[in-house]
Amino acid sequence: MNIFVHGAATTVFGELWDTSPRTLAKRVTRAALDDAGMESSGVEALFVGNMLSGILGNQEHLGAFFADELGLSVAAFKVEGACASGGLAMHNAVAALASGMYTTVVVLGVEKMTDHKPEDVAAALMGAGTDEERVAGATFPGLYAMIAREHMRLHGTTRAQLSAVAVKNHYHASLNPNAQFRKPITAKDVDRSPCIADPLKLLDCSPISDGAAAVVLSTDKPKKGKESVAIVASAVATDTLALSDREDLVGLRATQQAARRAFTQANISPDDVHVAEVHDCFSIAEIVALEDLGLYAKGEAAAAVERGDVTLGKAQHLVVNPSGGLKGCGHPVGATGVKQIVELAEQLRGTAGERQVSGAQIGLAHNVGGSGATAVIHILKRVTSSK
Amino acid sequence: MNIFVHGAATTVFGELWDTSPRTLAKRVTRAALDDAGMESSGVEALFVGNMLSGILGNQEHLGAFFADELGLSVAAFKVEGACASGGLAMHNAVAALASGMYTTVVVLGVEKMTDHKPEDVAAALMGAGTDEERVAGATFPGLYAMIAREHMRLHGTTRAQLSAVAVKNHYHASLNPNAQFRKPITAKDVDRSPCIADPLKLLDCSPISDGAAAVVLSTDKPKKGKESVAIVASAVATDTLALSDREDLVGLRATQQAARRAFTQANISPDDVHVAEVHDCFSIAEIVALEDLGLYAKGEAAAAVERGDVTLGKAQHLVVNPSGGLKGCGHPVGATGVKQIVELAEQLRGTAGERQVSGAQIGLAHNVGGSGATAVIHILKRVTSSK
Repeated sequence: MNIFVHGAATTVFGELWDTSPRTLAKRVTRAALDDAGMESSGVEALFVGNMLSGILGNQEHLGAFFADELGLSVAAFKVEGACASGGLAMHNAVAALASGMYTTVVVLGVEKMTDHKPEDVAAALMGAGTDEERVAGATFPGLYAMIAREHMRLHGTTRAQLSAVAVKNHYHASLNPNAQFRKPITAKDVDRSPCIADPLKLLDCSPISDGAAAVVLSTDKPKKGKESVAIVASAVATDTLALSDREDLVGLRATQQAARRAFTQANISPDDVHVAEVHDCFSIAEIVALEDLGLYAKGEAAAAVERGDVTLGKAQHLVVNPSGGLKGCGHPVGATGVKQIVELAEQLRGTAGERQVSGAQIGLAHNVGGSGATAVIHILKRVTSSK
Repeated sequence: MNIFVHGAATTVFGELWDTSPRTLAKRVTRAALDDAGMESSGVEALFVGNMLSGILGNQEHLGAFFADELGLSVAAFKVEGACASGGLAMHNAVAALASGMYTTVVVLGVEKMTDHKPEDVAAALMGAGTDEERVAGATFPGLYAMIAREHMRLHGTTRAQLSAVAVKNHYHASLNPNAQFRKPITAKDVDRSPCIADPLKLLDCSPISDGAAAVVLSTDKPKKGKESVAIVASAVATDTLALSDREDLVGLRATQQAARRAFTQANISPDDVHVAEVHDCFSIAEIVALEDLGLYAKGEAAAAVERGDVTLGKAQHLVVNPSGGLKGCGHPVGATGVKQIVELAEQLRGTAGERQVSGAQIGLAHNVGGSGATAVIHILKRVTSSK
């Protein structure tokens, strides 16, 4: 694959009550095109990642909708896969570029969640799960709480280790001007926060967010001398929709399968990754992800996070979720998978400011739908064009 | 592109109150795999076309959902673009195959509409349009009625010519065992049917339907000596979401643009097409489509349909909507774009039974979203493998 990230941008994530989805989309796409130094006339296709616009807003047809808003009459698609919608839109864009059908495309992730009642949003999000889970009254915090309980039982993972994930990601978010939560927290803050689904506390959970992110991808080589970023792997796998249908609760098979494919495509090993944006929808999810991705052996990630091994400024060779992750940066579901790519692009170009991972050459993005029914992995590499 | 249709199947379309979406999907995918002579283990990715499952059923994440139902842990995606969802899923599948990322994939279009109150379905379908259209009380029959009125004013199209589209497509559907309406109708029946949005009568409108269709696509060559079908073009274009934002009401710019791209890709001219499945959501839409596709000059399609020039058994070189089209075969919106490919595959293989277009070598599928904001065109060609 010779596919390059020419431009990348994200809006601030948060409760953006005064901004419509179309305004978020316009701003972020314009910013990504500016970053790429190009006009919209150079765009040949638009891939939109979004989950909830139909259920919450009765608005579908978002490919044409946003193409229209952006003044583009190009091929346009909405790709949906719950909280992995952004990652899946990326994968389809990468395939479309690799096919030679298009040379330059935009991937836009966008979600507007905070204008709705939280219980409506929670119900809409369960659209990612099964009828059986809904009938049983399950919510995603409840499902991930079961994963956490089992991980504690099998691997001795502690409540303090879960808190360490949240503390780290809030610290990283405090350095990110686009993060929803820029306030560092302590383990005591997590402990004192309300219990949502035992053992998960409020501060173990990613928030409900508004936001958008966009990248300009192209098979054209980056301009001479410009630091750029190449996509060297894009892999997707699925698992059963219901947690109750799985043999293993403490690992996501979809992540494991997608990781194997992605590392093979990129011809690297997990040890080669310097910076990872992983899907920490709940604190336990980051621990499970680090193990499923092969960045740590099963049962070893929680202690590593607690020791600070993947924290900015302390890490020796890998920083996890420098953006603040879903937990600290926010989780507008359709935008998250694209925002991960934006963060990696900034890290690999060396333009991530206060949260720069020093010397980062290879980055990995891991985006999950539902309780692990979909997993998408992208691997990005810093390249310097000598063209 | 070296992409072949190895298997194709459709369920019966209609009011399938006793059959769930998952059962429809399983049956039709199994039938398409059987047609291809392969096991599900050979499938590497699943592309699902669906529009309304989120709004009407609160079920999203359909890629993983149906992969799970089918026992596949492969890459899976939902692609949505209103009534063009099936066509857009096809396009993304074609790109993914052309990229070399996958060798064999399934495209599944599925929609369940008749379990809901008609007014809820009508409101959900307006999710394909704009806020402004919804606020104005517009519905799709209303929007297409405006197109019809303007076509009558500019090109002298008559009420009798609109009826001729419906009569032809019901006649074709009467020959299709999977069609929703197998009863031929007369022009008098159309005249006597209730007025929905003047000048459109009930029998000018495609119905609300349940149904599913699936194709197995592969870059592997078909088996020796087997008649097979190749996809030689796949093109998508978009236009403004709102009809009121367009300069021209009597042509869909998205169709015109996608057609130009598709004919260039296939290196053929409109005159080379023997069989076309076009998006006749309303009778006027077939007339507009035939002109936008370049199959007839603007203002000349209506008379051609009335003369019987595109009717099975009378046509000299082109038959339009031998399946019965959306009007006669039914229109489960996410399934329609895939069903068009199934129909063309049967026609080009020569297995279409009573509705066989004699000597068909080249077929065109035309799928539209909304009032023309999205258009997708595929061109298919009969090939005989000598491998």
